[in-house]
Amino acid sequence: MIETNKIGRYPFMAEPFHCDFTKHLLFGHLGNYMLNAADFHSHDRGFGMPYLNPIHKTWVLSRLAIEMAEYPTQYKKFFVDTWIESAMRYFTNRNFKIEGEDGTVYGYGKSVWAMIDTQTRQPQNILEIHDGKIIDYIDTDKECPIEKSSRVKMSNDAQLIMTLDTHYNDVDVNGHINSVKYIEHVLDLFPLSQYENFLLKRFEIAYVAESHFGDKLNFYLEKSGEEEYCIRITKSEEKNENEVETCRCKVKFVKD
Amino acid sequence: MIETNKIGRYPFMAEPFHCDFTKHLLFGHLGNYMLNAADFHSHDRGFGMPYLNPIHKTWVLSRLAIEMAEYPTQYKKFFVDTWIESAMRYFTNRNFKIEGEDGTVYGYGKSVWAMIDTQTRQPQNILEIHDGKIIDYIDTDKECPIEKSSRVKMSNDAQLIMTLDTHYNDVDVNGHINSVKYIEHVLDLFPLSQYENFLLKRFEIAYVAESHFGDKLNFYLEKSGEEEYCIRITKSEEKNENEVETCRCKVKFVKD
Repeated sequence: MIETNKIGRYPFMAEPFHCDFTKHLLFGHLGNYMLNAADFHSHDRGFGMPYLNPIHKTWVLSRLAIEMAEYPTQYKKFFVDTWIESAMRYFTNRNFKIEGEDGTVYGYGKSVWAMIDTQTRQPQNILEIHDGKIIDYIDTDKECPIEKSSRVKMSNDAQLIMTLDTHYNDVDVNGHINSVKYIEHVLDLFPLSQYENFLLKRFEIAYVAESHFGDKLNFYLEKSGEEEYCIRITKSEEKNENEVETCRCKVKFVKD
Repeated sequence: MIETNKIGRYPFMAEPFHCDFTKHLLFGHLGNYMLNAADFHSHDRGFGMPYLNPIHKTWVLSRLAIEMAEYPTQYKKFFVDTWIESAMRYFTNRNFKIEGEDGTVYGYGKSVWAMIDTQTRQPQNILEIHDGKIIDYIDTDKECPIEKSSRVKMSNDAQLIMTLDTHYNDVDVNGHINSVKYIEHVLDLFPLSQYENFLLKRFEIAYVAESHFGDKLNFYLEKSGEEEYCIRITKSEEKNENEVETCRCKVKFVKD
């Protein structure tokens, strides 16, 4: 049965084994919940992977920005609301709100998705799916009061601070490195004391190129402001010595 | 309100962003769901962390064995049933059954838990909590037809095949390396082709010593049978050159 509500609301819980040493939900798990909510939302409306994959199409996350006022503590139940803010030929903008059962607004997210052909990897016209039905789901009223992803600028001063191999657990259902794994690896660049002393306020990531199992990932970091860091991730493939940029992130912490 | 049922049944779903490239639930996420189910079960019956932590006690997972016939595919809903098979002064045996909404039996688990004082790290008498109330929850009827964890024997021939640093995302609410992270790191020792060609049939792990953020983990592997591997994980602390064993695992794959 096709869902007609524009906004999808999905319940989650900050399960204790998904929490960090401060007993707050881990950002990576939050990211996973949000992507799962996006998937459920499109699935429930006839645009999900189970419909798209047999016709050789898939959604690809292009940009994601998450901004949090606070994080659910362990056992807290919360909702991820998600809806489509706009849909163009080659991109849709999807928003998120993370809200506690008690009405606490934990934060918001904004994301940009493309649809590609799984064989040619070429962008596909989203408005051709179900005769442009996605337009009926656009909600421009619900508020998402955070800034869009910006273009993250980096100089040549960024320092290589970590290189790691990708493994089985990094790979998603499409055979690519899982979008959230990049986020987790970036957050792993910081010491525990960073999370003791600061709140992770905003994380944004732009996905530039896909990487695959076996690629080596290189993390370049540059400080861009007070407790604000830009990170460029490149991949080194076995068969290719040149590094290729896979994504670019900006992380902003604030005093807790 | 205290739950009186002996068996706890918790619903989960193989969310697509928790699935691997074969579109089956990732073993690490399954492990996390099982530990969360264990936590909910003890919490609902008055033995959970929120009760124990203020009196300076906590549960510590000592052994875990999981044996799977098959894995839920993406979007499948399933239950984790968990119950206490026995409780002694210093250990409880907790079992698990993973069952689909349609009755498919995916697999079983057996685990051993100790209770320790969070300050002295000394074992605590479980039967002293709520006057031995845990005894009322013991269920010896429900079947869990898999073998218990055995003592994993390893020779000196085991080869060091990976060393890695621990990071923010490895650390759990207690400040230790998360029990499931060891499992994920062990599964990351195998190439993708292993998961293409074989089913991960059984995983067992015995936790010997806790490790902490900043410890380096060393993975020693030895083949012990056809597609059966034993792995010893040691930690190297910054302040101590000697390696200390943190856990020992046995992994059995079968032809898929």
